[in-house]
Amino acid sequence: MKEAMNYVDKNLESSIRTLKDLCSIPSVSAQNEGIEESVSLITQIMENAGINSRILRINNANPLIYGEYIPEFYKKTIIFYNHYDVQPADPLELWESPPFEPKVRDGKLFARGVADNKGNIIARIKAVESILKTRGELPVAVKFIFEGEEEVGGVSLPKYVDKYEELFKADMGVWESGDKHETERPTIKLGYKGIAYYDVLVRGPNKDVHSGRAGLIPNPIWRLIVFLNSLRDKNGGILIEEFYDDMDQIQKEDMELLEKIPFDDEMILKKYGLKEFEGKSRGTDAIKSLYLKPTCNIDGIYGGYEGASSKTIVPSEAHAKLDFRLLPGQKPENLLENLNRHIEKYGFSDVELNYQYGYEAAKTEASSFATEIITRATRKTYGLEPLIYPLSIGSSPMYNFINKLNIPTISVGVEYWGSLVHASNENIRLEDFKLGIKNIINIIDELSNYSSEYN
Amino acid sequence: MKEAMNYVDKNLESSIRTLKDLCSIPSVSAQNEGIEESVSLITQIMENAGINSRILRINNANPLIYGEYIPEFYKKTIIFYNHYDVQPADPLELWESPPFEPKVRDGKLFARGVADNKGNIIARIKAVESILKTRGELPVAVKFIFEGEEEVGGVSLPKYVDKYEELFKADMGVWESGDKHETERPTIKLGYKGIAYYDVLVRGPNKDVHSGRAGLIPNPIWRLIVFLNSLRDKNGGILIEEFYDDMDQIQKEDMELLEKIPFDDEMILKKYGLKEFEGKSRGTDAIKSLYLKPTCNIDGIYGGYEGASSKTIVPSEAHAKLDFRLLPGQKPENLLENLNRHIEKYGFSDVELNYQYGYEAAKTEASSFATEIITRATRKTYGLEPLIYPLSIGSSPMYNFINKLNIPTISVGVEYWGSLVHASNENIRLEDFKLGIKNIINIIDELSNYSSEYN
Repeated sequence: MKEAMNYVDKNLESSIRTLKDLCSIPSVSAQNEGIEESVSLITQIMENAGINSRILRINNANPLIYGEYIPEFYKKTIIFYNHYDVQPADPLELWESPPFEPKVRDGKLFARGVADNKGNIIARIKAVESILKTRGELPVAVKFIFEGEEEVGGVSLPKYVDKYEELFKADMGVWESGDKHETERPTIKLGYKGIAYYDVLVRGPNKDVHSGRAGLIPNPIWRLIVFLNSLRDKNGGILIEEFYDDMDQIQKEDMELLEKIPFDDEMILKKYGLKEFEGKSRGTDAIKSLYLKPTCNIDGIYGGYEGASSKTIVPSEAHAKLDFRLLPGQKPENLLENLNRHIEKYGFSDVELNYQYGYEAAKTEASSFATEIITRATRKTYGLEPLIYPLSIGSSPMYNFINKLNIPTISVGVEYWGSLVHASNENIRLEDFKLGIKNIINIIDELSNYSSEYN
Repeated sequence: MKEAMNYVDKNLESSIRTLKDLCSIPSVSAQNEGIEESVSLITQIMENAGINSRILRINNANPLIYGEYIPEFYKKTIIFYNHYDVQPADPLELWESPPFEPKVRDGKLFARGVADNKGNIIARIKAVESILKTRGELPVAVKFIFEGEEEVGGVSLPKYVDKYEELFKADMGVWESGDKHETERPTIKLGYKGIAYYDVLVRGPNKDVHSGRAGLIPNPIWRLIVFLNSLRDKNGGILIEEFYDDMDQIQKEDMELLEKIPFDDEMILKKYGLKEFEGKSRGTDAIKSLYLKPTCNIDGIYGGYEGASSKTIVPSEAHAKLDFRLLPGQKPENLLENLNRHIEKYGFSDVELNYQYGYEAAKTEASSFATEIITRATRKTYGLEPLIYPLSIGSSPMYNFINKLNIPTISVGVEYWGSLVHASNENIRLEDFKLGIKNIINIIDELSNYSSEYN
């Protein structure tokens, strides 16, 4: 693949220009902006690279771009997942340059979406282009899925997967993203947590009432507090019956991987300005809490008076937003059932629980051939031993590939520890972008070697 | 006092004009507006009525207007408490006529402050004027205190009381206000609850953190919930040790008075759109909960994300605002001590408790001569049996008269059930204003009779 690697170097400026073009489109799915424009530009970039593209559509969904290159002779197929939609860019005043006017500063490219996830879209297309333009053929079949609703819950992707199951078949998958650790070692994620998001509402009197009546008029904030307090013990253990029942056992190999991740308690406590972690955990327990503990988190709570000084009322409503991070095996639909039983058993019929969205966790086994291929490629690309995370701290609907399509899938990407994903001044380093393209070439190469070795 | 009553009738239009003049001044203490202008107008109105006035000042406080008329011969002294400051008028768009342009519609005078508390200021001055102009002399000595910080916590009043204790001595007091019940029966309040207001803050990480880290990073909302939940049982009972220890025993006479208050459970539930009262109380228990139960109420709670859809964070701060309504005997300073001990005992050193303000409850005994005088006068004025509340549902710093100056004090006034105090379209009925003036005349008359009868 030496010629392909040279092609990457020689055409880097042009690849960056292409990435800038894509980042100039404000494809904010939450605001329904720039969707068709992105779809049209990406299909054109794919065609230029020699990849066939097709725009798939279902009702009430942003289009999904499907791309493929199927060589005459091949043994394995690899499929890439990315998304072309981005987070909203506000607050705009915190950006050093406008979010949709990509700018290079100090070897970094700044733009909303450049890290999450457009840098990876272009890196992957450019990797395939580099091989095709230098060898005229690929050693494996490649497929692409670029969806447009990742930042708004990704509810359409499973529908596309159901409808186009045959089209998406592959031997291994490469998921969305990955970043370099603070130690500059590349990271590999074998899976993502699942999630279930709820809005909680308790209604009290039909309008705010003078708090001199608090002895008589039930306060919905008190009810919300009693309800929330019933869900969790003081150390973060979840008190919903059967909550842990569907969770897969933690594998020894995964714990071994985690123990290799550099984790400096004191530095992390200092970074977040904390005295202690949840449940006062330290060392290996803390790492386990971070990656392998399902959580019930309150994203926000509000009700009544928030202003300066004082107001004395029994407010009419109290709200909370909850996210549960689920581990492999745990099903959002089981959680919903268990929560409803909890509400019934403990007499919380006045608590309105509104399920927003959710999906299950998914992970590829550490012993999978896909892990081996990605690890080998990454080691070669970066010249450093990659850090392998059995699960990301975050959630991503990787279950579409792993659980629905049975494709062992792993996540790597072009970001780094300072990419400020979802924040202002989102950026990637151009050197990481180049290495990210090359890593995809190495992954394709390793997959092709693997098929010759073992099949 | 027949001539005085005739004087009230004949001069009603002029009294209303005076009230309108006073209500035209936006004396919003929270915005430090119209203070000196109000002081100057009120002293002028008093001088016109034949009452001597004096403007008292202490550092960093709005002036307190002191008025007195001391006859050559008298046995008893009565002192009136009112405040010339008003609540802010916003939201302005909800007013049918501008809040500081008093307007009469359907026999009602609409203006910010007309009910709370300027209608009573003018009624009381005009009552004294009516006697003086028709008899040339008063049968008792009268004193007035008009303060300017009632709507912002009233922190200066006890300082004035300490400094001018000698000046404020009296045999009985008439407090701020009182309204007609929905049944049109006049009400008399023997006391007010105390209050203690707190801001609660729990700090988490130094910035919002991705909630995928919730297993490691303590969430301040959870801590706030655990803390708040430790303060109260499910029925509103307060779990702070020694909280109830300083509370006076509820008197049999007070319970008997409460049982005479018309209280229609179903109608009240319907009014507030509720299925049940706190603790499912009904009937006498419900009345007792409303008037004679100290409460811990959450006025507001906030932290993290409040927007539409979802955001997944461990927020950096969580806030709550708490008010405790205290019953006679309970001291805000004891509560603060007990709360601090609670925090220490249960390991809530991460909870920041900020005391905003507070004062104790105060009440006059049902068997007091002052109760007898006010009841007699009110019965005579309105031709109806008054409803006597041993305590108001609300709080007012009546302890300044009752507990600090040892003056038995009772609250009556010119408002009615529809006065919309603190709300938009605040109003009083002109007929109630007239009767309110006459009631003060009757109170002065009864006090003078009482002193002849018994002294």
